[in-house]
Amino acid sequence: MIFEIIRSEGLSHNSYFLASGGEAAVVDPRRDVDVYLELAEKNSVNIRYIFETHRNEDYTIGSVELARYVDAEILHGAHLDFEYGTAVVEGDTFRLGNLELEVLETPGHTYESISVAVRDTTVSDECLMVFTGDVLFAGETGRVDFFGPEKIPETAGLLYDSIHEKIIPLGDHVVVCPAHGAGSVCGADIRDMDTTTVGYERLTNPYLQMGRDEFTEHKISERLYTPPYFRRMEENNLRGAPVENPNLEALPVPEFRELLAESAQVVDVRNPTSFSSGHIPGSLNIWQDGFAAFAGYFLNYDDPVLVVDDGRGVESVRRSLIRLGYDNMAGYLAGGFPSWYMAGLEFNAIRSMSVHELRELEGDIFLLDVRKITDRERFHIEGSEHIWVGDLPDNVDMIPEKDVVIYCDSGYKSTIAASILESHGFSTTTVLGGIGAWLRAGYPVVEV
Amino acid sequence: MIFEIIRSEGLSHNSYFLASGGEAAVVDPRRDVDVYLELAEKNSVNIRYIFETHRNEDYTIGSVELARYVDAEILHGAHLDFEYGTAVVEGDTFRLGNLELEVLETPGHTYESISVAVRDTTVSDECLMVFTGDVLFAGETGRVDFFGPEKIPETAGLLYDSIHEKIIPLGDHVVVCPAHGAGSVCGADIRDMDTTTVGYERLTNPYLQMGRDEFTEHKISERLYTPPYFRRMEENNLRGAPVENPNLEALPVPEFRELLAESAQVVDVRNPTSFSSGHIPGSLNIWQDGFAAFAGYFLNYDDPVLVVDDGRGVESVRRSLIRLGYDNMAGYLAGGFPSWYMAGLEFNAIRSMSVHELRELEGDIFLLDVRKITDRERFHIEGSEHIWVGDLPDNVDMIPEKDVVIYCDSGYKSTIAASILESHGFSTTTVLGGIGAWLRAGYPVVEV
Amino acid sequence: MIFEIIRSEGLSHNSYFLASGGEAAVVDPRRDVDVYLELAEKNSVNIRYIFETHRNEDYTIGSVELARYVDAEILHGAHLDFEYGTAVVEGDTFRLGNLELEVLETPGHTYESISVAVRDTTVSDECLMVFTGDVLFAGETGRVDFFGPEKIPETAGLLYDSIHEKIIPLGDHVVVCPAHGAGSVCGADIRDMDTTTVGYERLTNPYLQMGRDEFTEHKISERLYTPPYFRRMEENNLRGAPVENPNLEALPVPEFRELLAESAQVVDVRNPTSFSSGHIPGSLNIWQDGFAAFAGYFLNYDDPVLVVDDGRGVESVRRSLIRLGYDNMAGYLAGGFPSWYMAGLEFNAIRSMSVHELRELEGDIFLLDVRKITDRERFHIEGSEHIWVGDLPDNVDMIPEKDVVIYCDSGYKSTIAASILESHGFSTTTVLGGIGAWLRAGYPVVEV
Amino acid sequence: MIFEIIRSEGLSHNSYFLASGGEAAVVDPRRDVDVYLELAEKNSVNIRYIFETHRNEDYTIGSVELARYVDAEILHGAHLDFEYGTAVVEGDTFRLGNLELEVLETPGHTYESISVAVRDTTVSDECLMVFTGDVLFAGETGRVDFFGPEKIPETAGLLYDSIHEKIIPLGDHVVVCPAHGAGSVCGADIRDMDTTTVGYERLTNPYLQMGRDEFTEHKISERLYTPPYFRRMEENNLRGAPVENPNLEALPVPEFRELLAESAQVVDVRNPTSFSSGHIPGSLNIWQDGFAAFAGYFLNYDDPVLVVDDGRGVESVRRSLIRLGYDNMAGYLAGGFPSWYMAGLEFNAIRSMSVHELRELEGDIFLLDVRKITDRERFHIEGSEHIWVGDLPDNVDMIPEKDVVIYCDSGYKSTIAASILESHGFSTTTVLGGIGAWLRAGYPVVEV
Repeated sequence: MIFEIIRSEGLSHNSYFLASGGEAAVVDPRRDVDVYLELAEKNSVNIRYIFETHRNEDYTIGSVELARYVDAEILHGAHLDFEYGTAVVEGDTFRLGNLELEVLETPGHTYESISVAVRDTTVSDECLMVFTGDVLFAGETGRVDFFGPEKIPETAGLLYDSIHEKIIPLGDHVVVCPAHGAGSVCGADIRDMDTTTVGYERLTNPYLQMGRDEFTEHKISERLYTPPYFRRMEENNLRGAPVENPNLEALPVPEFRELLAESAQVVDVRNPTSFSSGHIPGSLNIWQDGFAAFAGYFLNYDDPVLVVDDGRGVESVRRSLIRLGYDNMAGYLAGGFPSWYMAGLEFNAIRSMSVHELRELEGDIFLLDVRKITDRERFHIEGSEHIWVGDLPDNVDMIPEKDVVIYCDSGYKSTIAASILESHGFSTTTVLGGIGAWLRAGYPVVEV
Repeated sequence: MIFEIIRSEGLSHNSYFLASGGEAAVVDPRRDVDVYLELAEKNSVNIRYIFETHRNEDYTIGSVELARYVDAEILHGAHLDFEYGTAVVEGDTFRLGNLELEVLETPGHTYESISVAVRDTTVSDECLMVFTGDVLFAGETGRVDFFGPEKIPETAGLLYDSIHEKIIPLGDHVVVCPAHGAGSVCGADIRDMDTTTVGYERLTNPYLQMGRDEFTEHKISERLYTPPYFRRMEENNLRGAPVENPNLEALPVPEFRELLAESAQVVDVRNPTSFSSGHIPGSLNIWQDGFAAFAGYFLNYDDPVLVVDDGRGVESVRRSLIRLGYDNMAGYLAGGFPSWYMAGLEFNAIRSMSVHELRELEGDIFLLDVRKITDRERFHIEGSEHIWVGDLPDNVDMIPEKDVVIYCDSGYKSTIAASILESHGFSTTTVLGGIGAWLRAGYPVVEV
Repeated sequence: MIFEIIRSEGLSHNSYFLASGGEAAVVDPRRDVDVYLELAEKNSVNIRYIFETHRNEDYTIGSVELARYVDAEILHGAHLDFEYGTAVVEGDTFRLGNLELEVLETPGHTYESISVAVRDTTVSDECLMVFTGDVLFAGETGRVDFFGPEKIPETAGLLYDSIHEKIIPLGDHVVVCPAHGAGSVCGADIRDMDTTTVGYERLTNPYLQMGRDEFTEHKISERLYTPPYFRRMEENNLRGAPVENPNLEALPVPEFRELLAESAQVVDVRNPTSFSSGHIPGSLNIWQDGFAAFAGYFLNYDDPVLVVDDGRGVESVRRSLIRLGYDNMAGYLAGGFPSWYMAGLEFNAIRSMSVHELRELEGDIFLLDVRKITDRERFHIEGSEHIWVGDLPDNVDMIPEKDVVIYCDSGYKSTIAASILESHGFSTTTVLGGIGAWLRAGYPVVEV
Repeated sequence: MIFEIIRSEGLSHNSYFLASGGEAAVVDPRRDVDVYLELAEKNSVNIRYIFETHRNEDYTIGSVELARYVDAEILHGAHLDFEYGTAVVEGDTFRLGNLELEVLETPGHTYESISVAVRDTTVSDECLMVFTGDVLFAGETGRVDFFGPEKIPETAGLLYDSIHEKIIPLGDHVVVCPAHGAGSVCGADIRDMDTTTVGYERLTNPYLQMGRDEFTEHKISERLYTPPYFRRMEENNLRGAPVENPNLEALPVPEFRELLAESAQVVDVRNPTSFSSGHIPGSLNIWQDGFAAFAGYFLNYDDPVLVVDDGRGVESVRRSLIRLGYDNMAGYLAGGFPSWYMAGLEFNAIRSMSVHELRELEGDIFLLDVRKITDRERFHIEGSEHIWVGDLPDNVDMIPEKDVVIYCDSGYKSTIAASILESHGFSTTTVLGGIGAWLRAGYPVVEV
């Protein structure tokens, strides 16, 4: 038996490679599928089945791409009209060597969601592990708000039943393999825990302690963000259109400027400190490790994307763009930002202050908190106003004409916000370390 | 939380890397420790603790080597007088960020064996995972025969109690992290299963269904092989002497021949088919993937080791030699076996036959079965005699002066045997595919 | 300035990556173009020009494939009607940062062959290096027989002039970058030398010491082999059709057998010793490192190709198949040959003998020498007949019905020959070490 | 023949790996010798000879380290009393398969400098390539000022003779393999050219056009910097003491602070833009790619070294520290600078301005040019004063108590300077893009 977790950083997406007796299944493949092909070759096995636990909304799934290279069946839940693959229903089983994979219909997150229970039938009829997709995570359950607030009572109930009638009955001893880890937007607050079991969740997951009504109430009250790019992902994943993975080309300064002038959108993936010291006017900052999580809020699908990086290689950005369906890549600045300023071109800077400077700050400024609303509600710095960074583009008119000082948890999201506000003509300062450093420095917060 | 399993093929040894909050622990490190240092750097964490679940007998542990590079404490059970490290006892706890690691004394396999239970105290007091060393494996339990047959009633009882009083009470939901996977000699018949839990073992492990007496009887009746090199490993692991990892140098034919003439032992790690067609007279064959498992039966620690490979690189052999403590490496034949025959030197060949040829075979031959005794006892080919390949060097005088036809499960161990017998002047033929192919061809076996 | 030689083993093909000022050129790219894309990204440069020194005949060139990923112009000689790219003529220049690349028309090997001279114009007007394609190699010159023996007086004269009027006048100090290294079939006897210069060749290349007539005579007398697949490569390289690089899939034994029964051709890429001990009946042996050089003699373009390997990974075979245009890949045997014999299936063996056994051999055998005719003509073993291994498929009827003993230089080509003869029902034995070992053992040869 | 150039970035140091017939030589190995061992294994050859072209002053040579792993002779010039290895003299020859390596005594850069001429004696007596050490570079010649200005007439003459009597007579066609590429401090202005020949240098190298007297005058007038760490390197390379390559450990903030308080020196290897936005007070900035070239000016050998990086891995810094002999490594800040500000600790910032801001700048500032004196002398910005960045620590008292604006060529060296001046209490601003951007923006300079 071969079992590998493939973690895609940024999206906190887990896919799985499972093999026995020369045959393999992949669960929820990403679109840059080389990793699965390499695992298959290394282990000398054939990929026979590609399971989609549900129509994903946060990335373009790689099933069709993967099926171009291997002779495998794509399998997904029956309750959605996919334009590709084969529908499976409760109780369908598939065999990989000693292993039997059984489909469990587990709606809630989406209506057609499935889980896949794995048994080694040479050992026992007991279930060994279960791929739960976005049904059950470490310390969390899947979000159920994708079909509108009016549907939540229904979808929350479905999810509750899926967990309590399908997953928990498998037994405490069953290893849980969810589709996301900590940091994903597909669950409110997934734990940073690389492995869990049905029993560990039954005992420790706060949402599994609730009754059906309490759980539904909790889901109704949950406030989660839905990045605008989710719509595009849902379309992609319904159609299943394979697209050749595009290349991201190095562009010398003159070509880069030309494209920039024509309407391309520039995203600078350097760290906040680097970006703040100097950057191309009009560029959006999203630090590299946050790229997959935030790009979908700010980049549109029409204009070509230009990338500025710090020279460590744009491969991870390219992969994120592919996973998010931004196939319209224009290129990246050859030589990075230094080639810009070395060409004698104008650049902008953003001032950063420490929490100690913020503490001493006087005068008429606008202090902006761009954290998630749930974090804001726990505590905030006195005198600050709140707009979630993802909501900022639609709410710029709420910002008064003052010097804006921005904070978040640490300094990353506040620099995204600063880059957006700069494009709208604001003068901004970020707080390096954010409210995290503020607390560690012993300064007071307002708890509501 | 960062959790990685490091599998050392050949020995089927698992070591573990666990980190939280910038601090890491390594459980049962192997001697070529680069993998742990790389994980620490990649994740920007410090290795603080090195746990040895027990004094290992099947490989030289890398604790002292690893501690040369990092500022970490080496921790092992108190009931053995190690010449290095710190003794820990039941209930001792160690912290890694959110995680608490608790020592459980779990004797049986050895007297000082410990297990390590892991909890995320920010989540719950429930145990999340447990490092069980050689106490509990997937589908097996640790062997208890290292202190002589007269001690088995005692050690089997200890192991039974360790499992039933220490491990099972942790709860069905706890992930089990054993020190070995399928193929290890440290358990009789470990399952090929990459992940398991306390509950899955409680429900499906046949030895956990037994009562204490039945379990002890089972352990008394178990017949396991103890490779002679275990003695050396036990010494190494008691002393903990760090040794610089030696290099394996390419040797041109003349130098290779010179060393060979002087007393070096030659091991040819090519596949049986390659070896059979032609090999250096006097060389021992152990195929590369079986090297770690079989070398310790046949190589001595006094004479320098010479390696012949198929040109795919001797790095894995070098690593196995280091793990097994064969630091006296003389080198490998530059250019592999082709450089030998290209030099016009004499070589030997071993004939291979198919199972169909064996079926048709007539005449006065000696049919030798070199499989494990437990496999032999299930069924064998009529008319065959049995000597376990590991016992062959001490039992050559049992072989009559006839043509010897050797079979095993598949053809790998029989070629080891053929290479040994060839050195003693026998004329041998191996059966490619062994009893496995024999059965698949539909030929009859004797079941006892 | 960035300068990298990309060596493709097997074909002994050299391609080149040259960059300055953020722009790069690739000379004679192979079809698996990832290496050029990685160099471009690593150095943050753009590939602007793709030079084809000539319409290649020994591999499918990767220009069109590469141009799918980068915004580059494909450039080749004007005297052939390519269906893609841009024609260049004598004196055309292209700029990469400080470097100027100038086209030299250097016909002979083909009529449209070009060389490319490189100057750093910030330093001097002196030429620094020259890409000579198949015009001039280390110790050799390009072959001129592709247009038939009647054209050789013309093409040899053209080549002579190209070398003496275009290349040598560049100056002794110029570094020579040829399209092939030792082992290529595009030159009779290219030296194993990784770097050379115009001057070193002028002084030491035996063919540069000749006058025009002597050179032409030499070329007329030269006897070179033209593998049948060259025709296909010439077509591919004229059309320039890009083809998606196909995958080579692992096939379990039953699927492999099914395809085999249907008409696939099986090539076993293990070493001769491995192949000889046992192999699938009807399979062709070409050892892995010789695959690119010999496959084109024996594989046809119609039947799907099945591969048997020794488990070290079929990536290099896949790449060779792609370079040679064998896009009709059926897959490879999962688990390699052991999975065949483990299934209890029939296999064949070929006997190998040492040169000492050959020396002692008596009886009525047919001793076959399959070396190149030029090697044969220098010396051979008494009593042997000669058929070049590449000619064997068309000359099987020349072999008498006797036991056939085959030798070559070393034992590799003789096992190819043995696999071919076995398919035609002959009983064969190969000589491990071949005439090389025979000589080293001090045995006599016939010199003509 | 196998020939590989191993380039060590930063030091612009070239070492070479040359093999033939199963035997290899390494010329001027660096101290992290894994690359040579890997080449030897990959090519299945033995390293037999380690040549040191001279007692190096800019890095600790790896001969002794390499000789721990392989059975090789260390060879160096006879005219210095090394404490290890074997002295060789003019005309000594060594054989590697077909190749003959001949020692040429070529003093000048140092008294015991040697070059090594390579011939393939199976081809010709003509020389094929020559390892010239620090005698002859692409477009440059070695510096001759290490023995004091009074010795330059002698050493320059020796170098002139070495080049004209030993190297040039080898012939225009000979490939030149120097010990350094562009950027090294061992030659004044080495060309960015990856390959050259004796003839190309004879024709284009300006210093090879001079007569002996003119050459000596030129050398007397040459002004080169000698970093203080050269003394240490010379000692190391005379003694040849092998030192275990130390590890660079991740340190959490509290441990990092503790070491910092105790006297460690902190070097921050992030880019100037990142460093400027925020950094640990008292830290020295040297950007990662410039680390090897500049660290030796500013770090001392007594205090432990602490590293702050941008999270891309400190392996290259660790290797540079090893090559420079800074074995006293304390560790690096786990999590990089973000973990510092996230802990709520104080940090400093340095303002960066564009060349346009500099152009508009008014008021009483001190404009400091920290470029090399030779660059300064060609042109500078009006009103600026000059101190070479390497001389800054000893000349801080020359800076008036004003706001200091610092420029260099691009912005890298000026940030080093700013970090040094900040430690001495100055308020500094750097000019991003430096005089390069200034010129590209069309602003005037003073040419002297």
